[in-house]
Amino acid sequence: MADQSVYSAASVEVVKWEGGRAVAAREELAREEPLEVRVRGRAITVTMRTPGRLDDDGVSVEDAELAAGFLLTEGVIRSRVDIDKIEHCGRNEWGNVVDVRLAPLVHVDFERLTRHVFAASSCGLCGKASIAQVRGCHAPVVSEVRVQAEMLQVMVAAMRKQQGTFDRTGGLHAAGLFAADGTMIVVREDIGRHNAVDKVIGHALLGAVELKDAVLVVSGRTSFEIVQKAVAGRVPIVAGVSAPSSLAVEFAREMGMTLVGFLRQNRMNIYAGVERVVMK
Amino acid sequence: MADQSVYSAASVEVVKWEGGRAVAAREELAREEPLEVRVRGRAITVTMRTPGRLDDDGVSVEDAELAAGFLLTEGVIRSRVDIDKIEHCGRNEWGNVVDVRLAPLVHVDFERLTRHVFAASSCGLCGKASIAQVRGCHAPVVSEVRVQAEMLQVMVAAMRKQQGTFDRTGGLHAAGLFAADGTMIVVREDIGRHNAVDKVIGHALLGAVELKDAVLVVSGRTSFEIVQKAVAGRVPIVAGVSAPSSLAVEFAREMGMTLVGFLRQNRMNIYAGVERVVMK
Repeated sequence: MADQSVYSAASVEVVKWEGGRAVAAREELAREEPLEVRVRGRAITVTMRTPGRLDDDGVSVEDAELAAGFLLTEGVIRSRVDIDKIEHCGRNEWGNVVDVRLAPLVHVDFERLTRHVFAASSCGLCGKASIAQVRGCHAPVVSEVRVQAEMLQVMVAAMRKQQGTFDRTGGLHAAGLFAADGTMIVVREDIGRHNAVDKVIGHALLGAVELKDAVLVVSGRTSFEIVQKAVAGRVPIVAGVSAPSSLAVEFAREMGMTLVGFLRQNRMNIYAGVERVVMK
Repeated sequence: MADQSVYSAASVEVVKWEGGRAVAAREELAREEPLEVRVRGRAITVTMRTPGRLDDDGVSVEDAELAAGFLLTEGVIRSRVDIDKIEHCGRNEWGNVVDVRLAPLVHVDFERLTRHVFAASSCGLCGKASIAQVRGCHAPVVSEVRVQAEMLQVMVAAMRKQQGTFDRTGGLHAAGLFAADGTMIVVREDIGRHNAVDKVIGHALLGAVELKDAVLVVSGRTSFEIVQKAVAGRVPIVAGVSAPSSLAVEFAREMGMTLVGFLRQNRMNIYAGVERVVMK
């Protein structure tokens, strides 16, 4: 039975075909809906996301996390104090809208945000003139934290247990933040892997949780964008269940970050920052 | 041994940890690099893509397919004759650049393209005012084609055999176009699933291949964006190996398209347009 407070799945009619036989059935699918994020009343992005957990008034609490995380990982804001208030503007004709009210002194370069545009990729580059500029935006990650290899496997198993909607739909990515001792900070699911990462980083930002010794675990492949978001969130260790891309590895190494891939039952690959992984 | 004419993988040093033991090794990763697409000399997107097949001069032939498919599926052009020429501008400091020279009479609304911006999602909505507008852009798909359920399984197996880089890296998505009788039109791999779809649709566009009775097979999950791109390419049948999203199903039904998911060895789910699937 689905938890009605989590607006992550939708039930649809389907024809199931198996071994030459067709039957009508109902099935749950991962919910995908647009969210418009505004800053000071001005629309800066439309993202296809999974609404997730709702509060007592039926408002998605994950939308605020997503908006906050997105603004941090895309370099629009630098810290919690930059955000004055996040308002849910309700639905317009095509979905939900949140408006992020920033502190008065925060300067937003809307020109820069609108320069590189019409991007159909989840590239984390939109609005930035170049990868060189992305690199220039970030200082290398500094953290003396160490994590046991076995503990990374405990983390991914703990995250898996929280993936309630994935169990029902097979259609959601997940991201989780953990302390190095294995304490779970937060796990979020989303149809977009970059959104799941923005949600957990936004959750930490809004809750003033320090991430400089944290581990980000992601359910799928690790692209450049995921590493870029982790760097912006100042998370020193990223561990993914599947393969990283070439550029993800290159960027993680440049930024002094630890990058783990193919995190499975009894094995993993360490692509960068191996000194932070204690292998006994 | 990797085929050097396919620039899809990169070799990196890695520490492999298995059962408590660490060893140094080399491994191949899916290559991820930015491509800037220009129209009439003006940059309209930066996408993170896999370069793919190179010609004798070392230029990616898939970049032209990707650019052409992107312009079609995002509604910038309508047909092959809208494209005059695609020029490879070589590399700048952050990657490759292609410039699409359009026929003189093609009107491009750069204002519209730059209106909804700074999108970090692969949403297919960037540059469009709303989902309502996306819907308004497209007429329903009209096709009398029928495909055998078993033939869809043959197609996915045929595509899998072409996924050379996936075999080596585990990091690439694939998209394939097939005639309903199973004839393969083209298969392409990419780090971004939307790019793989743009590449195959661009391939068909540049080669003047008619798609109104074709089947699009995709390796992963099917989001709204994938269905939207198929509609723009006038492909009537989309079949994915994993789960579709709720909005993908909704949009496919509105557009009169056939949508198949969880296309596996001996089974599949038909979410929309079941009349085009012959189940015996």
